[in-house]
Amino acid sequence: MNHSDLQERIQAVSRMAAFNNWLGLVIDEVSPGNVQLSLPWREDFGQYAGFMHAGIQGALIDTACGFAAATMAGKVLASQYTVRCLRPAIGEHFRVLATVVKPGRQQVFASAELFATRDGVEKRVATGDVLLVPQPD
Amino acid sequence: MNHSDLQERIQAVSRMAAFNNWLGLVIDEVSPGNVQLSLPWREDFGQYAGFMHAGIQGALIDTACGFAAATMAGKVLASQYTVRCLRPAIGEHFRVLATVVKPGRQQVFASAELFATRDGVEKRVATGDVLLVPQPD
Amino acid sequence: MNHSDLQERIQAVSRMAAFNNWLGLVIDEVSPGNVQLSLPWREDFGQYAGFMHAGIQGALIDTACGFAAATMAGKVLASQYTVRCLRPAIGEHFRVLATVVKPGRQQVFASAELFATRDGVEKRVATGDVLLVPQPD
Amino acid sequence: MNHSDLQERIQAVSRMAAFNNWLGLVIDEVSPGNVQLSLPWREDFGQYAGFMHAGIQGALIDTACGFAAATMAGKVLASQYTVRCLRPAIGEHFRVLATVVKPGRQQVFASAELFATRDGVEKRVATGDVLLVPQPD
Repeated sequence: MNHSDLQERIQAVSRMAAFNNWLGLVIDEVSPGNVQLSLPWREDFGQYAGFMHAGIQGALIDTACGFAAATMAGKVLASQYTVRCLRPAIGEHFRVLATVVKPGRQQVFASAELFATRDGVEKRVATGDVLLVPQPD
Repeated sequence: MNHSDLQERIQAVSRMAAFNNWLGLVIDEVSPGNVQLSLPWREDFGQYAGFMHAGIQGALIDTACGFAAATMAGKVLASQYTVRCLRPAIGEHFRVLATVVKPGRQQVFASAELFATRDGVEKRVATGDVLLVPQPD
Repeated sequence: MNHSDLQERIQAVSRMAAFNNWLGLVIDEVSPGNVQLSLPWREDFGQYAGFMHAGIQGALIDTACGFAAATMAGKVLASQYTVRCLRPAIGEHFRVLATVVKPGRQQVFASAELFATRDGVEKRVATGDVLLVPQPD
Repeated sequence: MNHSDLQERIQAVSRMAAFNNWLGLVIDEVSPGNVQLSLPWREDFGQYAGFMHAGIQGALIDTACGFAAATMAGKVLASQYTVRCLRPAIGEHFRVLATVVKPGRQQVFASAELFATRDGVEKRVATGDVLLVPQPD
C-alpha cells in the first residue's frame, strides 16, 4: 500500500470516530509506523486553569498511536495508555507525533509526543505510550 | 469543611473547566479522598467502532482522580496518568469512582474505576491511576 | 485443579527462576486469580539509603502478578508493568498480594500491593499493575 | 561540576546501594542528564525460561533513570516507574541508557532503553519511564 492510500485509509477510520471529528483532528502525515496529527486550540478543550485538559492530551496521544499501529497491524484496540504531562499544555496549535516502537502479532507498542505552539514557539508538553492489541477484521 | 461545602467547591472547579462542561459531567458524591462522577452516553464520545473513545475514558479517570486529590490537597495538577481498557466501553450510562491512595505534600496518588451500564447491567470497563502534584494557591 | 495442586505448580515454576530463588520468595497462598508471596528483608535488597530497592519492589510485584495470571492462563509473559512507590519501603518482612483484575485470551490484567512490616506494624508501601500475555505451551 | 566529578559522585552513590553491588553494575558514562550503565549476564538474573527477569530489567531502568536525574537534581527518589518488555531479554551483555526528559523542581521525568547483546548482535529489549522526586539533602 503506498503512503497516499495509507493516509486515505487512516482518514476514513478517523472520520468514523465521532470524538475525533469533534476534536477537529487533521491527519498531516502517515507512513508505515508513523503518524502526525494536528489541531488548532479551542476553548472547549480547557481544564479549570484554561490549559488543554489532560484528557484531551491523552485522547490525542491514544489516537495518534492507534493510527500509527494501524498502519502496520490493521484493526487495533488500545489496551493501556499512559500520559506524562511535562509542562502546562498552552498554545494556539497542537501537534502529536506517534511512532510504533515494536510491532508484534499479539501486541503493538507505540509512543507519542505532544507539542504546543504558543506565540510562534513550539514546546513538547507531553509524552505517552500506548499498548495496542490487533483485532480480527 | 463539611461534605456539602466540599461538593460545592468541587462543582465550582468543574464548572471552570470547559471540557468538563462539554462532557456533561455530574458530580454525584464528594467526600474527603473520594469522588463519584457520572454522565450519560452521547454519540460524540465514540471511537471508530462506536465504543466510548479511550481518550474520553482517560478524561473521566483523570478528572475524577483530580477532584479526589483536590478534596485533600487543594489545587493540584496531574503529572502522569494511566488508563487500562479492560473491556469495550459500551453503555447508556457511565460512572467513575476515584479514591486517593496516598496523599502527600509533594505528590498525591489516586486511582479510579470506570463502569458502564448497558441494558441495566453495570460492568467495570476501565481502571486507571493518576499522580498529582499539589500547586501553590 | 485444586488449590494445593495449583500451589505446587506455581512453586515448581518459581523454583525454575534463579532470581526468585535468590530473593528467597515464599509462596504463602495460591488460589485461582490470587497469590500471596512473602520474604524476609536482607541487606542485599537495599538502595543507597538502605530502603528496599525500587527494582526489588518491582520484581515482587511483577512476579506475584505473573503467578496470579498463571493460575488462570497457564504460561504467561509480562509485557508491561508499573510500580508506584507510595512510601519508603523499610521493614523486617515484606508481603505482596496479587490479583487478576481481568483475565482474557489475548491479555491478562493483574494488580498487586506490597506491604512492609516494621517493628510489628504493617504498611502498604507500593502498588503496581502488570499486563501479561498468555503464551503457547 | 565536570563530567569526571559527576561520574565519581554517581559511582559513590551506587556503591552505597547493596543491590547495585550485587547486580555488578558498571557506570560507563555520566553527563548532565544522561547515564549509561552496563553489566554482564549472570544465571542469577533468570526468570523461569532463562531470560533476564523483568524485575531485573526494571531495576536497571529505575537505577539508570535515578542516576540521570541525580546528575541534575541531586538526591532523588523514584515515585513511579514503568517497564515495557518489547522482546525476550536474552544476551551475554546488557546496557541501559537513561535520559532526563524534563527536569523540574517538584519532579523529574526520565526515560531509558535497555539493550541486550547476543552473539554479537545488540537489540533493544525494553524501554521504561521513571518519575522522580527531588529530596532535601
